[in-house]
Amino acid sequence: MPIITLTTDFGEKDHFAGAVKGAIYSELDTIRIVDISHSVSPFHIPEAAYIIQNAYKSFPPGTIHIIGIDSELNPENKHIAVYLDGHYFVCANNGIISMLASEIKPEKIVEINIHDRIITNFPVLDVFVQVACHIARGGTLEVIGKEINEIKELTGIKPVVNQKGNQIIGNVIYIDNYGNVISNITKSLFEDIGKGRDFKIAVRTTSFTKVYTHYSEAINFETPVEKREEDGKKLALWNSSNYLEIAIYKSNPSTVGSASTLFGLNFRDTITVNFE
Amino acid sequence: MPIITLTTDFGEKDHFAGAVKGAIYSELDTIRIVDISHSVSPFHIPEAAYIIQNAYKSFPPGTIHIIGIDSELNPENKHIAVYLDGHYFVCANNGIISMLASEIKPEKIVEINIHDRIITNFPVLDVFVQVACHIARGGTLEVIGKEINEIKELTGIKPVVNQKGNQIIGNVIYIDNYGNVISNITKSLFEDIGKGRDFKIAVRTTSFTKVYTHYSEAINFETPVEKREEDGKKLALWNSSNYLEIAIYKSNPSTVGSASTLFGLNFRDTITVNFE
Amino acid sequence: MPIITLTTDFGEKDHFAGAVKGAIYSELDTIRIVDISHSVSPFHIPEAAYIIQNAYKSFPPGTIHIIGIDSELNPENKHIAVYLDGHYFVCANNGIISMLASEIKPEKIVEINIHDRIITNFPVLDVFVQVACHIARGGTLEVIGKEINEIKELTGIKPVVNQKGNQIIGNVIYIDNYGNVISNITKSLFEDIGKGRDFKIAVRTTSFTKVYTHYSEAINFETPVEKREEDGKKLALWNSSNYLEIAIYKSNPSTVGSASTLFGLNFRDTITVNFE
Repeated sequence: MPIITLTTDFGEKDHFAGAVKGAIYSELDTIRIVDISHSVSPFHIPEAAYIIQNAYKSFPPGTIHIIGIDSELNPENKHIAVYLDGHYFVCANNGIISMLASEIKPEKIVEINIHDRIITNFPVLDVFVQVACHIARGGTLEVIGKEINEIKELTGIKPVVNQKGNQIIGNVIYIDNYGNVISNITKSLFEDIGKGRDFKIAVRTTSFTKVYTHYSEAINFETPVEKREEDGKKLALWNSSNYLEIAIYKSNPSTVGSASTLFGLNFRDTITVNFE
Repeated sequence: MPIITLTTDFGEKDHFAGAVKGAIYSELDTIRIVDISHSVSPFHIPEAAYIIQNAYKSFPPGTIHIIGIDSELNPENKHIAVYLDGHYFVCANNGIISMLASEIKPEKIVEINIHDRIITNFPVLDVFVQVACHIARGGTLEVIGKEINEIKELTGIKPVVNQKGNQIIGNVIYIDNYGNVISNITKSLFEDIGKGRDFKIAVRTTSFTKVYTHYSEAINFETPVEKREEDGKKLALWNSSNYLEIAIYKSNPSTVGSASTLFGLNFRDTITVNFE
Repeated sequence: MPIITLTTDFGEKDHFAGAVKGAIYSELDTIRIVDISHSVSPFHIPEAAYIIQNAYKSFPPGTIHIIGIDSELNPENKHIAVYLDGHYFVCANNGIISMLASEIKPEKIVEINIHDRIITNFPVLDVFVQVACHIARGGTLEVIGKEINEIKELTGIKPVVNQKGNQIIGNVIYIDNYGNVISNITKSLFEDIGKGRDFKIAVRTTSFTKVYTHYSEAINFETPVEKREEDGKKLALWNSSNYLEIAIYKSNPSTVGSASTLFGLNFRDTITVNFE
């Protein structure tokens, strides 16, 4: 059964997501709808890109992903459907595709041209649903749009490597539900530049000389529980998406605090890696 | 496959919505359950009415909508099932039906009388699920209730037109995820009263003389991006449900602010339209 | 069609829940996935136990419940799959099973041993999904783990009965979406100890001498509406899960206040019942 996923900034309360699901089921009976997230911060393209990037690959090839962020049609924001890495994406040409798949070239991009109806202010309902259902029924992209070769590039925030090749300056790109801070420094960039050298990661006034691969690795389980002082321990690790993450062991933003609050780190703040 | 939707004030955390879904699947294997919203403010009937009103029409005819707001059975709050505009609604007779479909007469209303078990404090689980599944199996309303002709009317808040016919005083009925403020002034009322005359919409100390049909219409795309000062622009528009909405272009309540916070507008506050 | 439920502390925003659903559908096409909750407070095992305990029984026998709370594999936190009360649970051996079913002995427990891949920091995606899909396909627990006889016991917080048998000291175990306060005093414990005697329930400086079975029971519907002063009335009742709950009639935490805020009651605070 085909799958349509939804990633939007509609929030959990309003009628928008419900209306979109109703419209999809009105078009197609044999379809699965999966919510990826409706809690993206309003108009926050980098956040949406991070979320979809880390969710889409788990879905079966051929899944159709509707992205409802900043999607109102206007002269600078056309609607597109993209086939990329075996998945379909239906969204606005606002740079999100370049951010969620910076290293993967789309195989096909069409600019949607089924806007013969009045332009609406709810394009996910009125346009994206039709396009997604068309694809789910096995329709080709050419039928609903005109092929284009370029998508809007959002340079976004990329980590910078210095000329000497011994420093990476990265930025915070996402803060997760646990308040852990995710940077744009990937494991592969780190290994390419670091070439196995020792390093120091500077985060505000704290520094780390080790990057763990899972949270519990930071804990010494041979110390008796009552003598351990590792709850709330600050650590650096490769998260499940292979980004450098600054975390607090078992953090809870609303009680003991989180990496974001304890380090005072917000979206776009810098994290620096110095290699010896 | 029949569809049952859920609109409640259960919130996202508690077990209530999960338990209800389990109970539906225990009764019926071939059914779809769609969450419309579980984040209605507790006991807030007007909010729930606004959400369902704007979601239900997107679903296929015959869809069954469970409304779990203020639904405990008591002498003043009976349970009803209603067939209206091609859809079924299972809810308490607390006025919500009159608010969500003020212009549509229900075709059939029954007062549910299957309460032979002890009265519970979780009627959605114990009563509404049974009723919804009965309808989904093709059962008639007469089997689960006694037909009645009247439902409780909640006059709610309706816009008021002055005697001279040149002023509409409306009220805020909903504030959406973007902090945009939705009034109870519909496009059709506005056009009936205004008859094409010029107008001024007064919102606190700001006034608008134009109502847009989509947000981007408020932006002049011929101005170079770097010279535009329109992010955060205040505007009036007909929203996707054809209500008069006061909005901020690309607002984000938690960062740049929203219409609700910038105008200081809350539920029930007034918005006035003066025609010339 | 088999059902897999999800109860986690992933939150509503991040990609985690979406990725898990994608992975399940990639393994199995004919499966239903039901979200019970993704809003458990981070690492809060008692909260998760309360939620699952009150949701799982509504699902059909054979349902598979994935619990993604504090589930990283480490020497003190093994992964288990449990068959209990006709349902399957896939989770970490962190005490949650003992809390959610303190009175029901598991029929079968296996310690999962399919961790031949690198240990990850996203075990729900990498391990629990595989185990759940194996069970959904009709596979036996023995194939994915080694049978064990004991699970980790979390004594948690249990109500204490004094030696004279005329007092129960209970604790707050959960605060629900309405701000109502749920204690660990069950109706059956209350009746066993109370044996029909009169009682006084002490909550801070307020006391109750009656426990209602539904909220509306606290209201006198013979008093004309305009003379009633019962909105916001404080009351004690047996909630739908048969726990002693301290509630406010039609409370709304963000407006009129709730039992939790009005009594100043938080997780673990005490509630005392004195029998005559």
